[in-house]
Amino acid sequence: MSMNSFGHLFRVTTWGESHGPALGATVDGCPPNVPLEPEMLQQWLDKRRPGQNKNTTQRNEPDAVKILSGVFDGMTTGTPVQLMIENTDQRSKDYGEISQTFRPGHADITYFQKYGNRDYRGGGRSSARETAARVAAGGVAREAIKALVPGLEIKGYMTQMGALEIDRSRFDWDAIEQNDFWIPDAGAVQEWEDYLQALRKAHDSVGAVVEVVARGVPAGIGAPVYGKLDTDLAAAMMSINAVKGVEIGEGMNAARLKGSENADEIFMGAKGPEYSSNHAGGILGGISTGQDVVVRFAVKPTSSILTPRKSIRKDGSATEVITKGRHDPCVGIRAVPVAEAMMACVILDHLLLHRGQIGENQGRIG
Amino acid sequence: MSMNSFGHLFRVTTWGESHGPALGATVDGCPPNVPLEPEMLQQWLDKRRPGQNKNTTQRNEPDAVKILSGVFDGMTTGTPVQLMIENTDQRSKDYGEISQTFRPGHADITYFQKYGNRDYRGGGRSSARETAARVAAGGVAREAIKALVPGLEIKGYMTQMGALEIDRSRFDWDAIEQNDFWIPDAGAVQEWEDYLQALRKAHDSVGAVVEVVARGVPAGIGAPVYGKLDTDLAAAMMSINAVKGVEIGEGMNAARLKGSENADEIFMGAKGPEYSSNHAGGILGGISTGQDVVVRFAVKPTSSILTPRKSIRKDGSATEVITKGRHDPCVGIRAVPVAEAMMACVILDHLLLHRGQIGENQGRIG
Amino acid sequence: MSMNSFGHLFRVTTWGESHGPALGATVDGCPPNVPLEPEMLQQWLDKRRPGQNKNTTQRNEPDAVKILSGVFDGMTTGTPVQLMIENTDQRSKDYGEISQTFRPGHADITYFQKYGNRDYRGGGRSSARETAARVAAGGVAREAIKALVPGLEIKGYMTQMGALEIDRSRFDWDAIEQNDFWIPDAGAVQEWEDYLQALRKAHDSVGAVVEVVARGVPAGIGAPVYGKLDTDLAAAMMSINAVKGVEIGEGMNAARLKGSENADEIFMGAKGPEYSSNHAGGILGGISTGQDVVVRFAVKPTSSILTPRKSIRKDGSATEVITKGRHDPCVGIRAVPVAEAMMACVILDHLLLHRGQIGENQGRIG
Amino acid sequence: MSMNSFGHLFRVTTWGESHGPALGATVDGCPPNVPLEPEMLQQWLDKRRPGQNKNTTQRNEPDAVKILSGVFDGMTTGTPVQLMIENTDQRSKDYGEISQTFRPGHADITYFQKYGNRDYRGGGRSSARETAARVAAGGVAREAIKALVPGLEIKGYMTQMGALEIDRSRFDWDAIEQNDFWIPDAGAVQEWEDYLQALRKAHDSVGAVVEVVARGVPAGIGAPVYGKLDTDLAAAMMSINAVKGVEIGEGMNAARLKGSENADEIFMGAKGPEYSSNHAGGILGGISTGQDVVVRFAVKPTSSILTPRKSIRKDGSATEVITKGRHDPCVGIRAVPVAEAMMACVILDHLLLHRGQIGENQGRIG
Repeated sequence: MSMNSFGHLFRVTTWGESHGPALGATVDGCPPNVPLEPEMLQQWLDKRRPGQNKNTTQRNEPDAVKILSGVFDGMTTGTPVQLMIENTDQRSKDYGEISQTFRPGHADITYFQKYGNRDYRGGGRSSARETAARVAAGGVAREAIKALVPGLEIKGYMTQMGALEIDRSRFDWDAIEQNDFWIPDAGAVQEWEDYLQALRKAHDSVGAVVEVVARGVPAGIGAPVYGKLDTDLAAAMMSINAVKGVEIGEGMNAARLKGSENADEIFMGAKGPEYSSNHAGGILGGISTGQDVVVRFAVKPTSSILTPRKSIRKDGSATEVITKGRHDPCVGIRAVPVAEAMMACVILDHLLLHRGQIGENQGRIG
Repeated sequence: MSMNSFGHLFRVTTWGESHGPALGATVDGCPPNVPLEPEMLQQWLDKRRPGQNKNTTQRNEPDAVKILSGVFDGMTTGTPVQLMIENTDQRSKDYGEISQTFRPGHADITYFQKYGNRDYRGGGRSSARETAARVAAGGVAREAIKALVPGLEIKGYMTQMGALEIDRSRFDWDAIEQNDFWIPDAGAVQEWEDYLQALRKAHDSVGAVVEVVARGVPAGIGAPVYGKLDTDLAAAMMSINAVKGVEIGEGMNAARLKGSENADEIFMGAKGPEYSSNHAGGILGGISTGQDVVVRFAVKPTSSILTPRKSIRKDGSATEVITKGRHDPCVGIRAVPVAEAMMACVILDHLLLHRGQIGENQGRIG
Repeated sequence: MSMNSFGHLFRVTTWGESHGPALGATVDGCPPNVPLEPEMLQQWLDKRRPGQNKNTTQRNEPDAVKILSGVFDGMTTGTPVQLMIENTDQRSKDYGEISQTFRPGHADITYFQKYGNRDYRGGGRSSARETAARVAAGGVAREAIKALVPGLEIKGYMTQMGALEIDRSRFDWDAIEQNDFWIPDAGAVQEWEDYLQALRKAHDSVGAVVEVVARGVPAGIGAPVYGKLDTDLAAAMMSINAVKGVEIGEGMNAARLKGSENADEIFMGAKGPEYSSNHAGGILGGISTGQDVVVRFAVKPTSSILTPRKSIRKDGSATEVITKGRHDPCVGIRAVPVAEAMMACVILDHLLLHRGQIGENQGRIG
Repeated sequence: MSMNSFGHLFRVTTWGESHGPALGATVDGCPPNVPLEPEMLQQWLDKRRPGQNKNTTQRNEPDAVKILSGVFDGMTTGTPVQLMIENTDQRSKDYGEISQTFRPGHADITYFQKYGNRDYRGGGRSSARETAARVAAGGVAREAIKALVPGLEIKGYMTQMGALEIDRSRFDWDAIEQNDFWIPDAGAVQEWEDYLQALRKAHDSVGAVVEVVARGVPAGIGAPVYGKLDTDLAAAMMSINAVKGVEIGEGMNAARLKGSENADEIFMGAKGPEYSSNHAGGILGGISTGQDVVVRFAVKPTSSILTPRKSIRKDGSATEVITKGRHDPCVGIRAVPVAEAMMACVILDHLLLHRGQIGENQGRIG
């Protein structure tokens, strides 16, 4: 049992702190004979990397990932893949005040209450920097998925940032990679940018909603009743820093619907069963239907803001906290590649759990 | 690794199908010397039991739970506690049609696609009847919590049913046990009842939102970064049949907030840190703050309705499904005791994970 | 994590005490569509059952196993298989003295020291009766193995009982089932019987060595470096009551050998690699070679004897213990079917871990 | 589930290959506030390091361990401790022949059969070099044990090397650290050295028996029935390269004993129960008695010898293998620090599993 690990057969353990020498992921259970080179992982780390655009923090690190084990002659061997990212940008600074103070909305106080200590340098283990290791591991999962189920596609995008929401009638799948917000609507980018800059000037931050979709997931993947595909996805997303809510398909809105509205009716298609709609988000009883698997989650606004907030010190004395330095006004932006990585890991895990069963035990319909 | 188990140290494995001879829970990791009698568990099963009021299904079973192991002289021994509930009401009927047809919104089709077979009697393993075993296990967790942290209280209630929502200004903690909907507002009960009866007459069903609160959880409980208290709670709730969304504290609404609004400011109180608000839902960085732990989830409307819905048979031929028989128009009602049970199991699990640390490693503030 | 479970994908959790209402095994991860009837399991329970012959205890129970879940229309569904054996022979007796006294060689004292309590009725959870649940689970494993790898055969036998050892030059595979000692030498049975009866008359007991062989295990099964096939087998055997040593292939004797003697030389055979010998016991680097997998273990002499032994009571006062009642002079005899069951579970588990890989990733030689 | 991990709460995952850039251990579950510096780990790596004396291989590496995470200001934080050892001595050489040939007694052939590939450089993952990571992790466990149970001592030593066995009547606990064989008898060192040099000249190798003892383990540690202290120790030792047998206390010899001989009689001592002997090896029913915990295991002779042995190539063609280069004639010597490390990890794990219970639930005797 490890509290820093997730996955059943594709098991990822992340390690490392924000300002330690390095951080990374120990990836066990990757199938052998999967082509793997650092470049395949680097692309995803670059997508997440802070400082890549004006909407994310200015902390500028190459985030270069090294593969220390599990790969020989450019192919995975089936043994643990160790991924390491060195922390090259550890600005030495005076931590005097922050070392004594608990920042509101941060894990400073709870880590101290649990462990009786805390690595206060940049939040230590509770820093969003930990997600770099997830993104690297997700890159491994993507390559393994390619080898197992060619054509399976995983894509994340923002659907909401504070008061702004995307217009689903203008949804453009291809626009997502074309803008810094990963939104599926090129026409809205300027508005989103202005909104964020205004927040930055106001020394404030805002929350967001991110949606991740997996296309091409075969039907019959998932494991009732506690390792359900949706259960594992909910846990994976909730484990991401600042996430406060997770939805599958219709999500919280399902509470408003009637049974007659919510039913995804079934028809026989050319390649198998098809559905009139996807309120279910591609999952029934914890098992994939073959439709798009749709996960959505909300992240709270960045707690590190320049607006002063009341707090206390270790000695119990009152203080006010203003968080200077490099912080995204909306962490939702960088949560997109992280969520894609988590989705990739969970999908691969369930594909592996089902190996030797797909096509064999799978019920033939029609 | 077991896909039918949850929990780290307090490990619950449920087993059994809707219409098999029995179902139950194998509970491992319960501390020794906890007083445990069947009556302590039965009260929670009775709360969940169908047919207890006109708002839930008419299937009438005693749901009598038996303790087959792990208890000696009325005390737990520290060995596995086996809980069994016999299925006394297995009406023999002709399953001819249903055995060939996939019900929309049900796991019939995905179980068949995964396993190449399915126990079509009442949904087999995917039936909500499985939650009876969870409620029994939750009863064990409640008794162990009593012994570890006296005064820790766990309570669930409905906050929404279709178009109806509770008025939080009229929130009455004590009213919850007094009505069949488990809503914290005695004045609204009649309206909810009328609404539900109208749905029943319309041969339709509706979704709901359930909220569960744990009061008195000590600060410092939880295990970053993948066994977070909120991660485990999200998984626990998402694993419940028909759940499509899970929220902690502010939940999905956090996306609309600004950092300046969302911050729970910290003050020094008589017994330790206190907060100006609880947007966090009692959890920071996956660890409890000592405030109320607040979890919320949405269940979709019952898929079994008398309104005909299009579907297919195993042979691929088209058909229409009308689900007759005993079904709740709103499964949210019975989800309340189930959610309480899951919360109890997760809280106990994290209390055990932290044993010998509370007070010892826990950081002293002030 | 459950301390009462073993296996990775084929996960067995046993529950129950010697004199409780029932005991059994929760078996998760059994593949779907495996034919399974109670009779298939009962044959193995009957082989283990006490009172079946004059060499084992006189406690006479039918040990009838019930399948409570996971099977529909005579086939496994892929959901948990719950196996229950009711304790029909719970002679009510006065436990006064034994409830206060710790029996030398038994877990009475350590259970009390760990848990602060103990179910003193027949040893409670630490009774060898727990192994009945293992035998039932092993029966499920055998049926699943049949479906996966037809022809794979698992057989256990005694090779030593106190001063008596089998003569390997007279090894007769077919004689094993023909005698009460499960020894591969019909001619030695009388001598073994006389030896055991003499012990019984002398109010003493004796230890034994049991060997278990799996024939037809495909090459390439096993998972380095901590889930090795031999590691899992060693743990499985060591977990059996009274076992004090476990060997693979050459075992402890390997210490005496030289590298030139110990090497199993490799040749190319008609169906693949063949070996000049099997010092390795069919396992190299934790992975099967395709040769017989050979495990051997020693059980200590029964601690329950009529010869008085010094001990203490809960209050620390000195006493002498004579264990009356129904006890095998050599528990090794009944350890045979238990060891076969454990071997079956471990082999199936590794077959499942390798599913979708056999033939696919497996390296082709020649 | 990870096949490269062991431990329940103190979870160690090793990674890395013999000739990759680095190898190491991801250690999760170490308690917070344990003083930890690289030097504390380095001493054990130096003890294991090849080339340190003429009896072990000449491969000369510093084996310098780096702590990449989980430590802040010289104390553990409770987050994962990442230990890395860089491979500085990767002699580039022509692997042409070895890359095509399977060495008898090595995992070359089974890794290839399982994975369809293999890192043939020095055995890749199956190399004994992997044990360096175990030794580093064991060092962490030793420091944590110090903090939890001061005075608990763990020591390993050789008791047999081929035809040579120690004379227990001359057992000298303090002599162990004073000689290159870690034998408890200074007077025998010269004989052992001559024996080994003769083997080396004869181009042969030999097996050995190693014994590890833990003194000061509190009574009541262990977790029946599959996470028994002896079960976990057996698995830990069997997972070490070349181990073919594991014994607890009396071990395989228990088969020869009578119940009257084997019973460890119990007496009331000043500090609690005492025993007349320790045939049990300090464990009853999987739980510690408070006596010395005694584990023993046999390692097979080094398979890499200069004496030619028959084998085959990937293409199935016959060949003869002579293993040149740096190899111990007896791997048992270096197995001593590895076994100590495994013992430390298992003992710590069970101490943690029992935290908050020692003294609390533990039964008071007398």
